[in-house]
Amino acid sequence: MKIAIAGAGAMGSRFGFMLTEAGHSVTFIDPWNEHVEKINQEGLLVETDAGSRKYKISAVLPDQVGSSYELIILFTKAMQLEGMLKQIQSILSEDTALLVLSNGLGNIETIEEYAGQSAIYAGVTLWSCELEGPGHIRATGSGNIEFQPIKEKDAAVTTEILNVLNQAKLNAEISQNVLLSIWKKAAFNSVLNTYCALLDCNVGQFGSSNQAMALSKAVVYEFVQIAEAKGIALTAEMVLATVEKVFDPDQSGDHFPSMHQDIAKRRKTEIDYLNGAVVKMGEALNIPVPVNHLLTALMHEKEDILKIK
Amino acid sequence: MKIAIAGAGAMGSRFGFMLTEAGHSVTFIDPWNEHVEKINQEGLLVETDAGSRKYKISAVLPDQVGSSYELIILFTKAMQLEGMLKQIQSILSEDTALLVLSNGLGNIETIEEYAGQSAIYAGVTLWSCELEGPGHIRATGSGNIEFQPIKEKDAAVTTEILNVLNQAKLNAEISQNVLLSIWKKAAFNSVLNTYCALLDCNVGQFGSSNQAMALSKAVVYEFVQIAEAKGIALTAEMVLATVEKVFDPDQSGDHFPSMHQDIAKRRKTEIDYLNGAVVKMGEALNIPVPVNHLLTALMHEKEDILKIK
Repeated sequence: MKIAIAGAGAMGSRFGFMLTEAGHSVTFIDPWNEHVEKINQEGLLVETDAGSRKYKISAVLPDQVGSSYELIILFTKAMQLEGMLKQIQSILSEDTALLVLSNGLGNIETIEEYAGQSAIYAGVTLWSCELEGPGHIRATGSGNIEFQPIKEKDAAVTTEILNVLNQAKLNAEISQNVLLSIWKKAAFNSVLNTYCALLDCNVGQFGSSNQAMALSKAVVYEFVQIAEAKGIALTAEMVLATVEKVFDPDQSGDHFPSMHQDIAKRRKTEIDYLNGAVVKMGEALNIPVPVNHLLTALMHEKEDILKIK
Repeated sequence: MKIAIAGAGAMGSRFGFMLTEAGHSVTFIDPWNEHVEKINQEGLLVETDAGSRKYKISAVLPDQVGSSYELIILFTKAMQLEGMLKQIQSILSEDTALLVLSNGLGNIETIEEYAGQSAIYAGVTLWSCELEGPGHIRATGSGNIEFQPIKEKDAAVTTEILNVLNQAKLNAEISQNVLLSIWKKAAFNSVLNTYCALLDCNVGQFGSSNQAMALSKAVVYEFVQIAEAKGIALTAEMVLATVEKVFDPDQSGDHFPSMHQDIAKRRKTEIDYLNGAVVKMGEALNIPVPVNHLLTALMHEKEDILKIK
């Protein structure tokens, strides 16, 4: 299968080398010039617990894409998804399958706007990875993917995507309710990303404080209300059980969530696609979500104070 | 008039030297050992724009108070008020006037519990001061006081307190509605103290960001609802006008509010007597105040993360 990864950050790069290793033709599409150049000149440097290795993978800037792909895996940050789609729209056809694995709410709606005749798949993944620098990632641990056709053109293509991902040992399966999984993950991230970024702490520090569960519930209860209005069977227990699990110092206790890293590195956060997405839906549905409203405003305020544009 | 200042931090010390300068007998009552010793041994060092001077003032620890006073000005932090009152309760009589100038909501109720036969006055002041170290303050700028009898024993005492304060050039006047002023100041502080402490910024940085007025309104509207239920004629405009004024970089723009300093110096904040007081009242009155609720929990969480007890 001729595959492109649109948004070759840490996660996109990880998927890229695993698919390359499985014998597939992979192209990275990414707007970071230095990253693209380094990969083309020296290959992608992948560190694992077993050592390090270089992968020869071709990379292009989004405004340089020319050829078409059978599968385009979208792995941009949520706020870069629309920009990416605009730039690659010219190569999308009825023979293209788009699989979005970006975090956050609202990605499917964005893709539907730009997909034209292409098939659409959406998924969530528990794989993780770190970008060490241009052309250089550190890939440890394991994960899985669940995905589901949102607009299927051909059931055979769905099966082919599943097989391709599993040839690359990405532990994929077809989900029956990917929207629920996307909401679960978004609610989880809207608790841990947002509080850890705002309070400048790691997951364990947040979790070991007295207000942690009350603060978590305040976010999650509003997610549940909005999900319910949208016919998504999210429950607070589903989210809070996973939140509580990572509070354990032996689990992800010393982990600083990505939004904390964004603030530390003065990058714009994904708040509008997490807590902020629920705020917008709340306004449209006339359901008050004051907690997520305030947290979204506080995070934007933090970005403003740090002059993050 | 024989005067004690209970809680001789920055503000208490400033009042102390100004009253001493006006010829009154002043005693500091304060639990900070080093501060008390320094003042007794070397006097209170006061820096002003005109230079520095030492004032001979006697100071005692709260558990060492023996003699009685005609006027005790209470200037502790709100959370230390009850502890102070317990320790000085033995010297309170019907000949004592208590004047509380501590910031925050709930102070009058606390004093009423411990005052016994003593007269009670409550006030607010716009004087400010900085504590540079034990026995050492920096006093710049000007201010005023408004105060009002809450439990008056003798109108002549009220007049005497007014005169004493004005002999010390403290610009005092009798208020007709000190509760409104206390609420105005508490709402103002619940905006600026809380947001600047949470977002780690000064007043100007907070004020110049896009969400500043929306975030301010969210706090103030809830204060107004609770005040209304308590028969206090607070309006949002009253508070927001003063908030907006200090956003001006030429006003207090570069000022870090006291709660920001508390967090920076790992001291417990006054949150429970600002936003948190409104949360408690909201619970009692069954009026939801989600914004102040979340801000109070976030500040407690911040204290927990920094291991502030």
